Amino acid sequence: MCDVCGCGDPRLAPRVSIDVNASLLADNDAEAAHLREHFVAHGITALNVMGSPGSGKTALLEATARALAGSARLAAVSGDLATSLDAERLERAGIPCTTITTGSACHLDASMIHHALHGDARAAVERCAFFFIENVGNLVCPAIYDLGQRARVVVLSVTEGVDKPLKYPVMFRRADLVVLTKIDLLPHLPGVSTAALRDNIAITRPGLPVLELSATTGQGVDAWVDWLRSQSQLGIRG
Amino acid sequence: MCDVCGCGDPRLAPRVSIDVNASLLADNDAEAAHLREHFVAHGITALNVMGSPGSGKTALLEATARALAGSARLAAVSGDLATSLDAERLERAGIPCTTITTGSACHLDASMIHHALHGDARAAVERCAFFFIENVGNLVCPAIYDLGQRARVVVLSVTEGVDKPLKYPVMFRRADLVVLTKIDLLPHLPGVSTAALRDNIAITRPGLPVLELSATTGQGVDAWVDWLRSQSQLGIRG
Repeated sequence: MCDVCGCGDPRLAPRVSIDVNASLLADNDAEAAHLREHFVAHGITALNVMGSPGSGKTALLEATARALAGSARLAAVSGDLATSLDAERLERAGIPCTTITTGSACHLDASMIHHALHGDARAAVERCAFFFIENVGNLVCPAIYDLGQRARVVVLSVTEGVDKPLKYPVMFRRADLVVLTKIDLLPHLPGVSTAALRDNIAITRPGLPVLELSATTGQGVDAWVDWLRSQSQLGIRG
Repeated sequence: MCDVCGCGDPRLAPRVSIDVNASLLADNDAEAAHLREHFVAHGITALNVMGSPGSGKTALLEATARALAGSARLAAVSGDLATSLDAERLERAGIPCTTITTGSACHLDASMIHHALHGDARAAVERCAFFFIENVGNLVCPAIYDLGQRARVVVLSVTEGVDKPLKYPVMFRRADLVVLTKIDLLPHLPGVSTAALRDNIAITRPGLPVLELSATTGQGVDAWVDWLRSQSQLGIRG
C-alpha cells in the first residue's frame, strides 16, 4: 500500500506503517457495506460513475434523464474539487443532485456518500429508483473505493485514445460496464476505433461489457437504458 | 491534509496524525530541492508535464521532438500505472525515455524521479537540454508534488470541455503554463471555445500564460518551442 494515495507504490511503503492504509480501506469497506444494505433494502439501484475529467459523465446522466423522463425517479450526488457546475447541469436536466465538494481530494469515499445521505441528498435518494454517484474526474484513485454501489460504470471518451484500458488497468479491472462516449467525434479521430478500444478492454478485463454512445446525437442511449433496467432489482419504478 | 491521498479532504483528517502527511510532503520537497539543484547546476531545463488521461501529453512531446530535431538534446521519463507505451512512442520520436511504472499510484513524486536519474534515465538526462517529466494522466494528484522542475505545464484538451479550470483549480493554480491541445477538433465541439477556456483559466489563476496547439496539424508548435526556449537558462544547446 502506498502511504500517499492509499493505492500502491511499493517504493514508498517503508515510510509509514502499512496498517494505516489497510485500516483506511477496511473502514471504507465497512461503511460501503452499510450503504449497500440500505440501497438493497430500499430498492435503490446505485451506480458509481467514474472516468477522466471531460469523459462525459455529466452528459451521460443528462441523456439518461431525457430518456427516462416520467418513467423512473432519479437522484444523484456529484463529486468535484470545486464548484457545483455538474450538479446544476443535472438539476436542470431534472435529476435532483447534491454536490460533494472534495476540496483537493481526488475521489469519493463511502463516508462522503454516507454523510450526503444523512444531509441534503436524503429526500431525493430515499424515493429514487436509480441513484447516480458521479465521482471526481479521475481514472485512477476512485477505482479502489467501494461506495456501496450496485455497479461501477467507467465512462471513457473516444477522444482519450485507444490505449487507456491498458494504461489504467485498475479502473477497468474493477468495472462492471464501460461506456465509450463521444462516438460522434470518431470520424475526426483518425487513430481511434471502437474496435481497438474493445480489444484493449478485453485484454485488461476479458468479458467486461462495453457500450458505445453519443450523448449529443442520442446514439446508443437506448442500450444504456436497457443496461440500467437490467441492473434494477425491482424494474424501473415511478 | 487528507490521510488517503496526501491532498486535502478535511472530513478524513481526524483518522490519522497530520504529521504523517506533512512529513511526506516535506520529504518530497526536500528531495525535489535536491533535484532542482542538480538540474540547475547541469543546465538542464526540467518540465513537469501534467494533464488528464488522453489530454495529449505524449503527442505534445512527439511534436516537440519533430520541431527541435537536431537543434536540442531532449530526454524524458514517463509515468504510467502500467505499460511502457508512452515511452515507446517517445523513443520512436527520437526522445530517449525511461518508463516509471507506478503500479496503481496516481502521480509521480520526487523520489521516483531521483531513483530514475540514478538508474536507466541517467545517461540521457545528463547530456540533455530539456528533460520532460510526463506525469501520470491525472488532473488532481500530481499537482501537489514538486519534482524539482523548472516549470509545471498543464496540458488540457479542448475535448474535455471549458469548465475544467474551475473544477480542478489546484492544478491550474500551481501551473506555469497551460497548453490547450487538439484545437483541430474545435469545429466539431459546438459548446467549446478557447475564449471560454481562457476566461475560466483567468478566473482560477489570473495571468497564467496559455498556448493553443494541435499536434496533428502543427498549429501552435512554434509558440510552444519559443516558450521552451524562454525557460532554458542556457538557450538551446546541441
